[in-house]
Order: sequence, then structure tokens, then C-alpha cells
Amino acid sequence: MEQKKQMQLSLQMVSGYGAEFNAWRMPGADPAAYTNIDSYVERAKLAEQGKFQMIFIADTPALTSSLSTKTPMFPMDPMLALMAVARETKHIGLVATLSTTFNYPYNLARQFKALDVISHGRVGWNAVTTSDPNVAANFGSKPVNRQERYEKAHEAIEIVQALWGSWQEDAWTLDVETGQFADMDKIQPVHLQGEYYATRGPLPIPPSEQGQPVIFQAGGGQEGLELAGRFASGVYANPYDIESAQEYRQTIRQSAAQFGRNPDDIKMFAGFMFSLGATEEEALMRRKQLMDFNPEEIPGRVSYLGSMINLPLSVHSIDIDQPLAPQLLQRAYASPMDPRSPKALQLLQQGLSVRDVLAHGVINYHPVVAGTPVQVADFLEEWFLAGACDGFSIVPDASFDGVADFVHLVIPILQERGIFHNEYEGNTLRENMAVPYQYGVQK
Amino acid sequence: MEQKKQMQLSLQMVSGYGAEFNAWRMPGADPAAYTNIDSYVERAKLAEQGKFQMIFIADTPALTSSLSTKTPMFPMDPMLALMAVARETKHIGLVATLSTTFNYPYNLARQFKALDVISHGRVGWNAVTTSDPNVAANFGSKPVNRQERYEKAHEAIEIVQALWGSWQEDAWTLDVETGQFADMDKIQPVHLQGEYYATRGPLPIPPSEQGQPVIFQAGGGQEGLELAGRFASGVYANPYDIESAQEYRQTIRQSAAQFGRNPDDIKMFAGFMFSLGATEEEALMRRKQLMDFNPEEIPGRVSYLGSMINLPLSVHSIDIDQPLAPQLLQRAYASPMDPRSPKALQLLQQGLSVRDVLAHGVINYHPVVAGTPVQVADFLEEWFLAGACDGFSIVPDASFDGVADFVHLVIPILQERGIFHNEYEGNTLRENMAVPYQYGVQK
Repeated sequence: MEQKKQMQLSLQMVSGYGAEFNAWRMPGADPAAYTNIDSYVERAKLAEQGKFQMIFIADTPALTSSLSTKTPMFPMDPMLALMAVARETKHIGLVATLSTTFNYPYNLARQFKALDVISHGRVGWNAVTTSDPNVAANFGSKPVNRQERYEKAHEAIEIVQALWGSWQEDAWTLDVETGQFADMDKIQPVHLQGEYYATRGPLPIPPSEQGQPVIFQAGGGQEGLELAGRFASGVYANPYDIESAQEYRQTIRQSAAQFGRNPDDIKMFAGFMFSLGATEEEALMRRKQLMDFNPEEIPGRVSYLGSMINLPLSVHSIDIDQPLAPQLLQRAYASPMDPRSPKALQLLQQGLSVRDVLAHGVINYHPVVAGTPVQVADFLEEWFLAGACDGFSIVPDASFDGVADFVHLVIPILQERGIFHNEYEGNTLRENMAVPYQYGVQK
Repeated sequence: MEQKKQMQLSLQMVSGYGAEFNAWRMPGADPAAYTNIDSYVERAKLAEQGKFQMIFIADTPALTSSLSTKTPMFPMDPMLALMAVARETKHIGLVATLSTTFNYPYNLARQFKALDVISHGRVGWNAVTTSDPNVAANFGSKPVNRQERYEKAHEAIEIVQALWGSWQEDAWTLDVETGQFADMDKIQPVHLQGEYYATRGPLPIPPSEQGQPVIFQAGGGQEGLELAGRFASGVYANPYDIESAQEYRQTIRQSAAQFGRNPDDIKMFAGFMFSLGATEEEALMRRKQLMDFNPEEIPGRVSYLGSMINLPLSVHSIDIDQPLAPQLLQRAYASPMDPRSPKALQLLQQGLSVRDVLAHGVINYHPVVAGTPVQVADFLEEWFLAGACDGFSIVPDASFDGVADFVHLVIPILQERGIFHNEYEGNTLRENMAVPYQYGVQK
């Protein structure tokens, strides 16, 4: 029997809580999960039970939003969180974002490769550029313009990969009899000098079971595509619909081909959010409960929804627990600038209340399915079979039970349908992502 | 009964092996301990059994010596090693060196404080400056001169401490009922601008159980003393004899007083090496076994020993397994430039062979006792009671059994004599070091 093509799944860890910033107030949640490293380890173990290919920790080294009522978006420290997880898992991949704009390549190379060796070849680096002026200020810098950021990114990744390859694969002889610890002819400086970064090397760390960490990429635009095509084996993308996802995936694959690579060696993960219930109504209830924790934000959300369908909606002029009046609705049209708009309009036209439409997640930054496990599985299957992506970056609404529910309720359906694996293919992230072995600089 | 004054003990982890670079070849050693994080965790657990106040990981981000026959001097990554240890220990302090010369203060502040929170207040930062030109080259820099290094160190530590204090102690309200996650009036930028480093902040990490990590210092000279006096609660020092240790300790204490601090709040740890045996002869045999792994180094050691006692010793002109001839020995005198010389001369005058004198560790970079557990305990007691130090930075010859032997054989003697504690005084490093709580910049 021919093996069906199978999707890959990445679980995004959003600080300790989940995609919804009120998740910390849910009954059963640990409000202090931000500082409780157990919360990361436990979710990673659950994800490993569910055969997720990897966990993924995004990062921005700054306080990017007020913590008055919402939880932080990023963990205290991504590499320490992954180290804790590495000790208590065996197969799942460990991917973290660190900036190429505000880190020394030597430090990046060292910490990622050390973790890759310690975890027996399960690490990935999501190499991003950082435009946030708050981050720049934290590093005593002015904001760095886009061109310079991407030039720095190319230099940083090349230097990091060169350092990763500077301890050759057979350099560690470890011969107790003769007393040769390593063959120093095979541990050589790299002597790279760029415009922004330089290093001498070598990095004194031997290869891991997968050679070296897998490069991920997440930025958009022409510069992001080039970086992905040249270096990345995984791309985190944020499409809102199948068509734009298909298009973006093709563009990424073409970029890889332009750099002489096999397009199948670059995997696109589409961001995806979900809320589960035994029924769609129950799932919506859960989202409304999350929304109701911050009633003061509802006016802003209503007006934002209005802008998506070109109506001046306000909590003062409409009852958000009712459908929109037909005479209002007939003037609405989906904003061509926002790919989420057609779904928003469609739900309103189906007669859902404004609150319910918001609860469906139409203004979230990834597609949302609020529904049953089958509805979630249907969505993932449809996108995947349409070639919209190679897998998904899954962001649960609230981590404390969302991860377990996905693992226990959705994964078995995907496995049953033959579109998600039943077991890890290998021991390393490269094996489990089906991307080639790599050592040293990408050729 | 009055409580005797008690020494503190820090266990130095030298990559995976021990102070002697041939330790990887000892029967029973794990030759690949460098990449085996278990080796760090197991030794730290042993040290915790022995009530060591802390483990200590030194660091230099470069390959500092050939690995042809010797093991690396530093672990793959100090912070990841400490994170692994933090998860599997409860009381022992976790101290790592990271350079103030080649790290962004924001990154330093973040990773150390995150680990401090995760470990429930057990972390210390040994803030050093880096002169090594190989390190500078790894970071794309020319070597940094001494004055600039220390100016950078002052700026870096001040910025790091300011960031540590930028999330005020009562800022994290975590009120599930009202929905206030944190009081943003108490999480403020620090806006520090130095000559070399600057940061905006805040660092979004709450206080740990000890407020913030403990600062350690290890550099010498007037600049090192000032840095220690201003910031450090712990100092790693390298005296060879009691007199110079007493003098250095007094100087450090005076420096703290000059910065308005209580001299008792700065603890000096003297580096100390040992090899244990049931008899002194057995301990010497162990050291000779370690030495014999690299016979090609013996000529250099013999000639180095000669320079300490002002004799032109060579393996070609003497039999190193015999005592020196009296007519040769009578021309010898201890080099006044090297405080290790009198001991070397004394042992030779006692009629020990040259090989045995070398085995006693007279040319090692810390004082060495090769002897029985009682001899080791006697040495530590004598130094401690003479006020030569507040504790010791213990460096076993070979980690695989050296740590266990020290814990099982030496610690009980120290406890029996009342000069080492039987139990941890508290849960945090500050409590166990008896140094004051600290939050934000040292006043």
C-alpha cells in the first residue's frame, strides 16, 4: 500500500499560557505558568505523546506589550526552556527563535549546537531579523533598517553554520589507548569576515546525531524569501486562506530551487489556532468565556471587525448579542486588504451574532477553528491536501488543557485518516522532518 | 554552645573531567563526558549530597588549548549545563562565568535571571573581563585593553543589575479575580546609557526567591579589586600560600568597606586541588598514573620545576626517579617570584624523587594536597582557621570518582570538626552564602 503524504506538526509554546492572553484566568490554569518551567516540560511531553515533530518557542527580547491584564508573549528565556524540555523528552524537536540582529554569531552557534549535541540532534534555530525599536533600545542600538537587517542575517547564519562545521565530523577520535582526544588538523579556524560580523573560530563542539541544528525562517517579503530559499529547512508562515498559502508555499519552493536546492527539502508550517468543544457551540462558549475576561476590549474588537467589512460598527449603536440588521449588512463588503474579511462577512450573513463572529476568531492573527475535533481535523486535512502547506504551527487557545485535548482528540483522527504519522521516523529532527543531513555552510 | 565559624565549599566543574587533563583516560572515566550532560548532573547531585554551597563553571568562549591529548577546559555551554543541573537538584548554588567584554548586558541579565527564577534563587554570575585575543577574534573584535575591559565590566554589571531590578518586587500582582496580571507602574524602563553599553529595559522577569543572582568576581589587579569591592559577594582567588591568601582577603574586604559595604558580605574562595588515597603513597600513585599518560610532557615539567628552584634540570642529565644529588641540591634556592617554589624545594630536600615532587602538584595552578582524607581536611582547616579564605573552590583531579571521594571521605571529617555545615541554611544561594538580599543596582 502506498504511504499517503503526511503533514508535520509543530506546537508553539506561547509563554506559559496559550494564544489567548486571558488564558491565565481560566479555571484550572496555572496563573504563574510564566515562571514555572514544569509547564513547558509537561506540554512538551504531551506533544511528544502526540508525535508532534517539534515544539517551537518564538522570541522577541523586549517587553512587547503591557502586562496589565495580559500575559507575556514570550518565555523568560527560550534556550533554557528548551534545555529543560530536552532532558525529559526523547524524540520531539526543539526549535527556538533567536535574533540575527542582536546576537553575536559565536554565541548563537555555541548555544544552539551545544543543545543539539545534548538533545542528540533535535534542535532547530528560527533565525529572524529584529525590527522592533524596543529591542534595538534594549541592546543600545537604533532600529536597524530592513536591508541591513537582512545583510546581517545572511552573515550571521553563514558564520554560525561555518562554526558548526569547524569541528569536522571525524575530528573527535577519543582514543583512550593512544591518548589522542581529537585530531586537531580537523578542528580549524573559519576566519570569516563580513561587513557586520566576523569570527575566527573554531567552535570546539563535535557534531550532533543530525550534524547540526536545522535552520528555520519566519520573515516575509523578498528578503525573507531569499533567506528561506538559501538556508531554511522549515518556514513558519502566516497565511489566512488556502490560496495565499498555496502561493506562498510555491514561492518558497521556487526560492529554494533558485539556490540549487530540492524544493521538497523546505517545509512550510502554516500558523493555526483552535478551540475545541464536544460541539461547535461548546467551543464557541469557551472562546466567549476567554473574551469575557476583558470586556473593556470588546468595543475595540467590534470596531476592528467593522473595518474588515467596511461598516462603522460600535457597541453603542448595535447589540453585539444579535445578528446585524439586514439593512446594515447589505451595505457590508469584505475588505480586499484583509484575507480574513470574507469569512467574517460570511458568518455575519449566516445570521451569527457579532459576539459569536468574534468568538470564531475572525480577527485573530492565524486562522481559527472553534469546533469539534472532527472540524479541526477537517480544516487541517483540507489545507494539507490542497498543498497549502507541509504542516502546521499549532497554537492552542489556552495551553493548560488545549495541548492535551489536541493530542487526545484531534491527533487520533489525523492518524486514522493516514495524514499524520503514528510514530517518529527517527531520532533526530532532520529525520523526523525528512530534510537532509547538513554539516557546515549551506552549499 | 557557640557555633564555630564554618567554611563554604564551591565545586568547580572542569568540562566533564577534572583538573588533570588526562583524567579522561583513567579506567572508570567516561571519555566522552564533555558532551554527556549526565556527567554534570551526577556530579552536582553528589556535591549537593555533600552540602557544597555551589557548583562553579568557569568559561572562556574560545578553544584555548590543543585537544590533541587533553580535554577542553570549559563545558560546551555553561548556562545550559546549569539549567540541566537546576532541574535535578534543590539546594546547591549554580554559578557560571560569562564575559562582560563580549556579551550584551540585556542577554546576560535575561539568561541569568531566568535561571535564577527557574532554580528558585540559586544562581550566581561570575562576571569576568576577557583579554584572550582568541576570544576577541571569535567576536570579530581586536583584543580590548585592560582599562576598557574594566570600564565595560562596570557598565555591564550596573546595567544587568538595573535590568534585574526593573520588574519591581511587588509588580507581579497575578490577581485572577480582577484580571490584573501585573502592575505596569512597577515595571519600568531603566534608560541606562554608558560609554560602551546601553539599555532601555525593562526586563520582563519577576524577582526570584533571592531577589536576583549573586555577583562573583575572579580577576586580579587593582581593577579587579575595585570591581569586587563594588559588586561581588563572592571572589574566586588563586593564592598559593596562607600569607598571600590572608593578605588578598584583607585587601578584598577593605575594598568592600571602601564602597560602604560590610566586609563580611564578601566571601573569598581559594582554589584548591586534591588527589585522595588511603595513604599518601596511594594518592601519589594516582597522580603519577595521571602524569604517565603523557610521558612526552615530563621533560617540560622537569625543566619548569628546575626554573622554580634555579637549577637547570633536564631529563637528560638527571634520573627523575631518584632524589637530586646533594651537590646539585645545595646550589638550589626557591624563586622569590613563584610562591610555589619553597614547597618544591622543601620536598626535594626531604629526599623525594623528582617524579614524586611533580606528583605532589608543586607546579599546578592551585595548591595541591595528594594524601589521605585527613591530610586534605587538615590543609583546609589550617587555611580556614588562619583567615586565609572564607571557603574553597575545590577542583578534583579527576571528576568521575574525585567528587564522590571528597564528598564521602573529606566532608564528614570537616563536619565532625565543626568547620563545615551539616545542612543547608536555607533554600537560596544568598542564604547559604550568608550574604544579604539584593535587588537592583548595588548601592
